[in-house]
Amino acid sequence: MKAFVVVLTVICNVVAEFKGDTVHWIWTCNLNEERCEKSAASPVGAEGSSVYTSPTVCRLTCGKYGALWPQPTIATALTHQLVEVHPDNFFFELEYQQVDFNDFLEANKKIFIQNLRKECGGDCSLQTNTKVTIYITITNPDLTLNLYTNESYTLEILTRADFVSVKIYADNAFGARHALETLSQLVASYSTPERRVGLVMVAGARIHDKPVYVHRGLLLDSARNFVSLSSIKRQIDGMAASKMNVLHWHLTDTQSFPFESRSVPQMARYGAYSSDMTYSVEDVEEVVGYGKVRGVRVLLEVDAPAHAGSGWQWGVQEGLGKLAVCVDKQPWRKFCIQPPCGQLNPINPNVYVVLGNLYSELMQISKESDMFHMGGDEVFIPCWNSSLEIRDYLIAQGKSQLLTEDFLDLWSHFQKTVLKTFDERTGRDASIVLWSSKLTTPDVITKYLPKDRYIIQTWVPASDTLPSDLLNLGYRLIISTKDAWYLDHGFWGNTRYHDWRTAYDNLLPNDRGVLGGEACMWGEYVDGGGLDLKIWPRAAAAAERLWSNPTSNAGKAEIRFYRHRERLIARGIKADAVSPRWCYQNEGECV
Amino acid sequence: MKAFVVVLTVICNVVAEFKGDTVHWIWTCNLNEERCEKSAASPVGAEGSSVYTSPTVCRLTCGKYGALWPQPTIATALTHQLVEVHPDNFFFELEYQQVDFNDFLEANKKIFIQNLRKECGGDCSLQTNTKVTIYITITNPDLTLNLYTNESYTLEILTRADFVSVKIYADNAFGARHALETLSQLVASYSTPERRVGLVMVAGARIHDKPVYVHRGLLLDSARNFVSLSSIKRQIDGMAASKMNVLHWHLTDTQSFPFESRSVPQMARYGAYSSDMTYSVEDVEEVVGYGKVRGVRVLLEVDAPAHAGSGWQWGVQEGLGKLAVCVDKQPWRKFCIQPPCGQLNPINPNVYVVLGNLYSELMQISKESDMFHMGGDEVFIPCWNSSLEIRDYLIAQGKSQLLTEDFLDLWSHFQKTVLKTFDERTGRDASIVLWSSKLTTPDVITKYLPKDRYIIQTWVPASDTLPSDLLNLGYRLIISTKDAWYLDHGFWGNTRYHDWRTAYDNLLPNDRGVLGGEACMWGEYVDGGGLDLKIWPRAAAAAERLWSNPTSNAGKAEIRFYRHRERLIARGIKADAVSPRWCYQNEGECV
Repeated sequence: MKAFVVVLTVICNVVAEFKGDTVHWIWTCNLNEERCEKSAASPVGAEGSSVYTSPTVCRLTCGKYGALWPQPTIATALTHQLVEVHPDNFFFELEYQQVDFNDFLEANKKIFIQNLRKECGGDCSLQTNTKVTIYITITNPDLTLNLYTNESYTLEILTRADFVSVKIYADNAFGARHALETLSQLVASYSTPERRVGLVMVAGARIHDKPVYVHRGLLLDSARNFVSLSSIKRQIDGMAASKMNVLHWHLTDTQSFPFESRSVPQMARYGAYSSDMTYSVEDVEEVVGYGKVRGVRVLLEVDAPAHAGSGWQWGVQEGLGKLAVCVDKQPWRKFCIQPPCGQLNPINPNVYVVLGNLYSELMQISKESDMFHMGGDEVFIPCWNSSLEIRDYLIAQGKSQLLTEDFLDLWSHFQKTVLKTFDERTGRDASIVLWSSKLTTPDVITKYLPKDRYIIQTWVPASDTLPSDLLNLGYRLIISTKDAWYLDHGFWGNTRYHDWRTAYDNLLPNDRGVLGGEACMWGEYVDGGGLDLKIWPRAAAAAERLWSNPTSNAGKAEIRFYRHRERLIARGIKADAVSPRWCYQNEGECV
Repeated sequence: MKAFVVVLTVICNVVAEFKGDTVHWIWTCNLNEERCEKSAASPVGAEGSSVYTSPTVCRLTCGKYGALWPQPTIATALTHQLVEVHPDNFFFELEYQQVDFNDFLEANKKIFIQNLRKECGGDCSLQTNTKVTIYITITNPDLTLNLYTNESYTLEILTRADFVSVKIYADNAFGARHALETLSQLVASYSTPERRVGLVMVAGARIHDKPVYVHRGLLLDSARNFVSLSSIKRQIDGMAASKMNVLHWHLTDTQSFPFESRSVPQMARYGAYSSDMTYSVEDVEEVVGYGKVRGVRVLLEVDAPAHAGSGWQWGVQEGLGKLAVCVDKQPWRKFCIQPPCGQLNPINPNVYVVLGNLYSELMQISKESDMFHMGGDEVFIPCWNSSLEIRDYLIAQGKSQLLTEDFLDLWSHFQKTVLKTFDERTGRDASIVLWSSKLTTPDVITKYLPKDRYIIQTWVPASDTLPSDLLNLGYRLIISTKDAWYLDHGFWGNTRYHDWRTAYDNLLPNDRGVLGGEACMWGEYVDGGGLDLKIWPRAAAAAERLWSNPTSNAGKAEIRFYRHRERLIARGIKADAVSPRWCYQNEGECV
């Protein structure tokens, strides 16, 4: 009852905003339709019912899932009562004494409070006496973040007078992090006529949640165009807000090799766009650490044997032979799919030495990772076929007809050798991810790639049967549906932009071999300045598909999605506009 | 000769950057192909020829038009020599004593120097003794900016020892502004191994230039989503850099009415998204002033009678009757093209009083403007037909069948009345711009809209004959080719994104009635955070079409266009990436 009184205080504060000259707009929750309705204020009609002066505050408790994104999967119950809160009045208690307040939890307390402040636009000038204590119970102190990390959590909010108790139960700290993210989404800002800003929180809640898919990824490409560390971190912020858990870092490509390897410094010297546009070992470590604190593991990719050219030019002059062939060769259409051309030389043993060095360094940086991405897409046979060295090699092996199968065998030889090198140099039996390719077609894949070791990332259209064919063969998959989750589409060639509804409605095959999926932000037509706009909020649509896999479609999610877009903006991510603001203020009226 | 020595100094400085650990990349101009070619430095090969350590410096003088955007139209000659310059060492002299250094020129001196500093990334740490004096000769002191402003200019650069003389000749200050913009494009930054940054300028040049079209516009929509003043100004910066001269400000629409009219304050009170999301009279004046200094006039639009709803709801309660009909009516598809619905009530005389007040205020703000935009697109007959009041009116006029023509006549009655109101209230016989519509079809337009008074803005696809039909009838046109210059396309419905090449290759009908064209950034799916990326650099492609109207196509412009994109970035405009950086560093290799 007291909590309800608190709500009314809030409302009175805010209604006053429109007194005097201007119009009083109010929002009320239509309980049947689960949407907030805007109307001109009528003092009589508003009396006794829950009326709000912004759609954002109304949204907090309107509808089963309120303002939550992604929607919880097991149980969600929110009261309609709100309570005023302030970032200074949150306290944390760790309940289970076997687990310490480690750095991870300390960092997440800070992030949580920061996110509340961002919700106020940085200035939570309205104080309150209400004290919120967050009790965290974790039973598993392990801080390893990998494919098997249990991400489930339970969150309970109970308000009595001006004391709010929040209870978080999780197997481990990563689940607790998700709970804090959910809690932050139960908070919204409001402003008074004097433009002072305060926060209200849902006064009562019980949420039980865990993700449907274990791999909920976003691919970033730092090779076509360089992306600064701060831009990468901003994407991780967006992922954390949307409970995505894998940053797939496509670190290198034909265009550039920005990783400053310590063991092979030539790579970045020859391959970086400039001495400013590189990532040191410390930089990559920083990203891995930044991600981990936010429940995001980093899946590093060094694409090979295709998509490799820049950075590999120095072999001959250092006496190691040609490391890559057809590098920058013109006319490019004869030797590759996209300029510049370049493909590793699979018959030069030094190639494996260099790759081994890189794998070793990168797996040391991502110490906990149980996955590595070796690329493996778009090998272009005419490139290898244009190399006298490679042709002579094949002919010497009795393959004088230089058939497509001969080159596929050469490619599979390359893949077997790099896997062996990886194992020898890293000592880790991490799962190896490969893009779907001519090596992964259902008729040949079992010959080339053992299914206990390889995970295949498919990038075919939704209509393609490849994912189900590979699932039938027992392969584990990461799915990047090309005509839904390729975020670069629409800006080149005949591709079409896939809007957030398409991204949301992209259903994955119903099979336990599906680990999850990734939205892919290929970098040809984007750099740091445009990443936010092209990734967000669309990647968040994929995020709810991957976390919640709801039976309903985008239409049902629209109102919460619009709210989540505003949340991303508040957190400093320049998410694209997905509708006129009118549609945000008039829920359900633009359908 | 001395100038050439200066060049060599620069080169020596910069080549040193790659000494020691790293690779020396150099760029040389292939004079035949007019492109800068990248290669690993070879001390022997480089000797005596013009070699550069960045594509940006090489680009300055490579090819007839170097790094200029848009390309000059009458004469362009650039030497290959460069000279080191510094923003502190530029001096201005006004040659023709009848003209003062007015505020306009003072402001443009500052903008010019600022742009040089931005080119250095804010820190031009490399000093030089070279002194640059800019002599400006203007014969016409008139500072009115309108459709008839003469924008031509001549620019000459001559370097002797460490003294550079720049001569600018123009009819008026707006032409001189264009000359300064061109001059700033003859400057590029370079950096030393110690990461100190300096500027080099083309040491000799003679350019004579004037635009092909007098109306080179960009439409901004501040009604679907609110756009802050700073975001609007940033677009003007981009326009000034690309020599566009009209900001078409689509100020109001059905979704919101952000203009805080002093005479009709109800409009924004009812129609703004919030009390923060408004433009005061001073705000609009600020934009007009900011534009003028940059050679950009502001064409204000109040769309009517359709695209009007928010802001017009207060008539009944204030005793003025219904000002708009079918406002926010659902299901919207029955009453309008896009939610929310709303259309002015043409039979309520108070509508004209309100519009008259708005016209009067807005024409006072844009004091010099010889144009006003009255919108006039997408009148939706079922909306008017759903109003009993309007139907009774038509029936009383003997139009009981309520034919389409009856509604068109009503619309034309509306248009005649608002024109009369405009004339009475503003006392200015400004040209009135209207969007093409059912009133502007070739078979009826002469009945409804006198061609000496109206300019038609066509927004049909390139294949549509409407523009040539209207030109044959003697109308003046502003052309916004829907399938080339609609920058919102690709993000909604079945529309496709039009890339910069499509925008560039969009030829306008060859007829003197074509005043020019506009790229249109409709606001449903963009707000301040995304404007830069969705507008730039594509609008700059339209800008060169409109200024230079070259006989060549985008392929020929690509290298300069990539450079201009970098320039926009340097100036603080977050222009989208249009290629992997590799293509910028390897000119012509991605074709």
